[in-house]
Amino acid sequence: MPVEYSAPTRDMQFVIEELAPFERVAQLPGCEEVTADLVQAVLEESGKFAQGVLSPMNWPSDRQGARLLEGNRVQTSPGYSDAYLQFVEAGWHGLSGSTAHGGQGLPELLGTAVSEMWQSACMSFALCPMLTAGAIHAIESHGTEEQKQRYLEKMVSGQWSGTMNLTEPQAGSDLAAVTTKAVPVSGPNGDHYRITGTKIYITYGEHDLTENIIHLVLARLPDAPAGVKGISLFIVPKYLVLGDGSLGDRNDVRCISLEHKLGINGSPTCVMSYGEKEGAVGYLVGEANRGLEYMFTMMNHARLQVGVQGISISDRAYQQALWYAYDRVQGRVHGFGDEARPIADHPDVRRMLASMKARVEAMRALGYEAAAYLDLATRTDDAEQKALAQARVDFLIPIVKGWCTEQSIEISSLGVQVHGGMGYVEETGAAQHFRDARITTIYEGTTAIQANDFLGRKLLRDKGAELTRIAKEITQTAQFLRAADHPGCKRFGATLERAASVWVEAAQAAMACYSQSAAASFFGSVPLLMLSGYVLGGQMMARAALIALPKQHQEPFYAEKLASACFYASHVLAPALGIADAVHASATGLDEAQRFTQAA
Amino acid sequence: MPVEYSAPTRDMQFVIEELAPFERVAQLPGCEEVTADLVQAVLEESGKFAQGVLSPMNWPSDRQGARLLEGNRVQTSPGYSDAYLQFVEAGWHGLSGSTAHGGQGLPELLGTAVSEMWQSACMSFALCPMLTAGAIHAIESHGTEEQKQRYLEKMVSGQWSGTMNLTEPQAGSDLAAVTTKAVPVSGPNGDHYRITGTKIYITYGEHDLTENIIHLVLARLPDAPAGVKGISLFIVPKYLVLGDGSLGDRNDVRCISLEHKLGINGSPTCVMSYGEKEGAVGYLVGEANRGLEYMFTMMNHARLQVGVQGISISDRAYQQALWYAYDRVQGRVHGFGDEARPIADHPDVRRMLASMKARVEAMRALGYEAAAYLDLATRTDDAEQKALAQARVDFLIPIVKGWCTEQSIEISSLGVQVHGGMGYVEETGAAQHFRDARITTIYEGTTAIQANDFLGRKLLRDKGAELTRIAKEITQTAQFLRAADHPGCKRFGATLERAASVWVEAAQAAMACYSQSAAASFFGSVPLLMLSGYVLGGQMMARAALIALPKQHQEPFYAEKLASACFYASHVLAPALGIADAVHASATGLDEAQRFTQAA
Repeated sequence: MPVEYSAPTRDMQFVIEELAPFERVAQLPGCEEVTADLVQAVLEESGKFAQGVLSPMNWPSDRQGARLLEGNRVQTSPGYSDAYLQFVEAGWHGLSGSTAHGGQGLPELLGTAVSEMWQSACMSFALCPMLTAGAIHAIESHGTEEQKQRYLEKMVSGQWSGTMNLTEPQAGSDLAAVTTKAVPVSGPNGDHYRITGTKIYITYGEHDLTENIIHLVLARLPDAPAGVKGISLFIVPKYLVLGDGSLGDRNDVRCISLEHKLGINGSPTCVMSYGEKEGAVGYLVGEANRGLEYMFTMMNHARLQVGVQGISISDRAYQQALWYAYDRVQGRVHGFGDEARPIADHPDVRRMLASMKARVEAMRALGYEAAAYLDLATRTDDAEQKALAQARVDFLIPIVKGWCTEQSIEISSLGVQVHGGMGYVEETGAAQHFRDARITTIYEGTTAIQANDFLGRKLLRDKGAELTRIAKEITQTAQFLRAADHPGCKRFGATLERAASVWVEAAQAAMACYSQSAAASFFGSVPLLMLSGYVLGGQMMARAALIALPKQHQEPFYAEKLASACFYASHVLAPALGIADAVHASATGLDEAQRFTQAA
Repeated sequence: MPVEYSAPTRDMQFVIEELAPFERVAQLPGCEEVTADLVQAVLEESGKFAQGVLSPMNWPSDRQGARLLEGNRVQTSPGYSDAYLQFVEAGWHGLSGSTAHGGQGLPELLGTAVSEMWQSACMSFALCPMLTAGAIHAIESHGTEEQKQRYLEKMVSGQWSGTMNLTEPQAGSDLAAVTTKAVPVSGPNGDHYRITGTKIYITYGEHDLTENIIHLVLARLPDAPAGVKGISLFIVPKYLVLGDGSLGDRNDVRCISLEHKLGINGSPTCVMSYGEKEGAVGYLVGEANRGLEYMFTMMNHARLQVGVQGISISDRAYQQALWYAYDRVQGRVHGFGDEARPIADHPDVRRMLASMKARVEAMRALGYEAAAYLDLATRTDDAEQKALAQARVDFLIPIVKGWCTEQSIEISSLGVQVHGGMGYVEETGAAQHFRDARITTIYEGTTAIQANDFLGRKLLRDKGAELTRIAKEITQTAQFLRAADHPGCKRFGATLERAASVWVEAAQAAMACYSQSAAASFFGSVPLLMLSGYVLGGQMMARAALIALPKQHQEPFYAEKLASACFYASHVLAPALGIADAVHASATGLDEAQRFTQAA
């Protein structure tokens, strides 16, 4: 049986309070009560809940996943229903929710750490509140006052859940091809729409955790223009909600099948059929034909969350591997005498553990940094500060999503490897993390979509202005490191300085390539995104090293942080810089690739 | 449903006849009939069998794997029994087997290509003959004449299968800890031993494909010294074999459970219990206490086979991804007009396909090269040639095993990614390859064990002599490329020249590090092994480019080969050279890693 999750509260606290712009976040409107004490209290309590309630369900719910029963009902895994009730009753669901609708209004910086815990402890379970948060954002940002009153309070509290319905069988990542129809109807209960169509990959599209499910659905009006500019967004409740907030008729929407997946088996992935009878009743959100635009406004939050899943599953895999590497005592190890030693003492097991942990720390730091800038961009009243923060968060999000999730596949694979043969046997749980992690680079926009967003919208649109700002910060950090009285930091400084220039040159090459051939530049966009992740992760670890250096004798935590930062530089960052070569070779690469990968 | 496997016979033919030392192999004793015509005929026929008989079982046998029934019987997946019968009757089992025992005695160079097909078509099925080959080698190399007569003919034909029993629950990779006992007994049927103990991870330890199973078992005699020098090797047949070759009593060995694994579900992975009653009857192979040494003599062959599995599963994943990328038509692609296009035309899908295919080709070339040197080392009569070939094969094997299998995880993961959301749904089959591939870096010696073998036995023992020989060959190839009248080749030449020096410097650093700290040097051994794989794969692709260049207008195959070689240089080899930094930082890396990865 797998080891239970233990929340890394010390590192979370460090990243929130010392590494991220915590003081600026704490001064934001609505964050008056966000103090170090509050952070500690929240992390401790959520850590306990994650460990005691959610973590024990993770492995069993992989073995017995969600099931489709007669009558299109979905039964979640044993324990999910009770755990969800506790989750809602303890108030965890509304942690980051708006205070206007009963939430606690805590900043994303803190909410992200808590969310990391839920996803680490039981990713399949945590997907339900994660999707609900997306639906809440949509209604809060674009719904009418009446819609907000009708749906948000119960969604914020967790009494109702929410879903996002984008994908259709014929349209995967390509939303221009959406064909679900919405026909306007005037009725005694006011204007509404009748929705018909099929949506696939709907996470928690049907389940037994809540009394109602509020579906957010992309569909086309009869007169809508073709393509992405003819898509509207609709609220389609599973049960219609009456004026007094009570539940009315069952809507014409049902789950017709569940996918049999590689992982996240506890999370029902539904095929949803809308309007098999009279058409599902839907309510337009915002203006017609602006659905995709509205989706984009929620995207930063949703993509940050999936990036955090990458961090979560990586940390869980690390904890499992670390536990096994010390539990498994087997044979002698060179340099450790005649006694049998834990396999952690084998140099390569040690290397794998270190590679996992150093990357988890870099990813966590980068993810929380993005969350802090999301708070700054959302809550500040200062227009200039808002714009600066928005530019930063826009820049960071595709990197956090793309890089952290790709890393999670490699890291969870190392977790399997640390276990040797036992890693291939499902009962240790290492394999589950490897299977669960594999979805994260696919949903909420594949890695290629993140990369194209990064190159197309984050680099080309501002002609590399934000890139240049960040590169200057990195160069400055590198100079501080070079001046430090510590050999590892000095080496890190040299590596980071090289990394900054390699990164800037690669980004400039990609931008220059775009003006010659857009296709060729996008051939290099994933390598560029990965390079960006390694470099920005390096910048976070470099800043961590500078904070830890003077405190290394105060608390073992800082000495460890210093070591992990230096290890990151030599074993993660430096080896990754070669990726830039692929970016520079995009133009010839695409041409060559087309020559030798044609259909048989 | 997944697409069926189609054997890449054209590339196999190219690698065998044009890239590997085919002419030298064809001149070896016993290879008189090995001509280009024979190669083509064998590849065509085995390709048909792989596609028509084995491939259709691959996905169904993942869904319905091997089952343990009452009475310790194991039922293999539907179709396996029939397919095995056809496999044996068509003579495929004995292809590389010794002619002295009814085999066809074909060289490994050709046998490896055929084996690649079996493993691509249905890895879970192909594991049975693969393990039998290992057992045959053991008996052939170290058994008595009487043992050879008694067992080999039926094992070579495939009428009986064989297994390798090394691992025990308390001893994973550490064979020094083996505790299975063997007590000598004199009886009316001659001297034998009674074996008692438990062995785990026994592939095809029990099944319904053959009438008998010949287990090769490591065990300790009562007076054996502790550690690896006290382990002996025994033959333990499932049914005792009488003097006339007929089957006698059921032996005291049984399968007590099957592992529930991440993948290769069609292959029964057994926990074997020896001697629960009176002790299983076993026969000593060779001399007492030399069992581990005997295992080592078979290791090159077995590890080459698992390396080939890495190639096989990668190619299968590529074929699946290529098929899907052209089958899936979805939306417009920039630069391709208004019509919906296959997703293969998206630049990043193209990049993934190219990255998969170029690496498969490099791995295949390297794997077959090792097979050819195995033939030269085994069959040549010239002592000097034999020694040279043996040094080469010893050097290549850990690289082929370690690198090709690690690549297979990344490549099959890209295969999932090409499918997008469909890749995460089991019914496409992409996920199966990802799960199946994951075992290959673990069994037959983990990647770390390959890396330690490479550094400890292949570099340090001859003080880098073989490395230097190969590096010279690479530098020479690079010079030819630089002189070529082809921009891609010129660039490849420059990259390859840099690669050779980066590789040699890293290897020298690892050797130098060893004299300071063995542990630190082994901390860098996996990075060094991976670097070696990329560089030697580069050398093979470089040689392929030189062959293809003058023929590029003769046949599309050569133009494609030229493109894939150049792509390999810029998108696989160049980005990987940064790994050398991790090797150089081994000493500080181990120290740092120990500081921040201690048990909680």
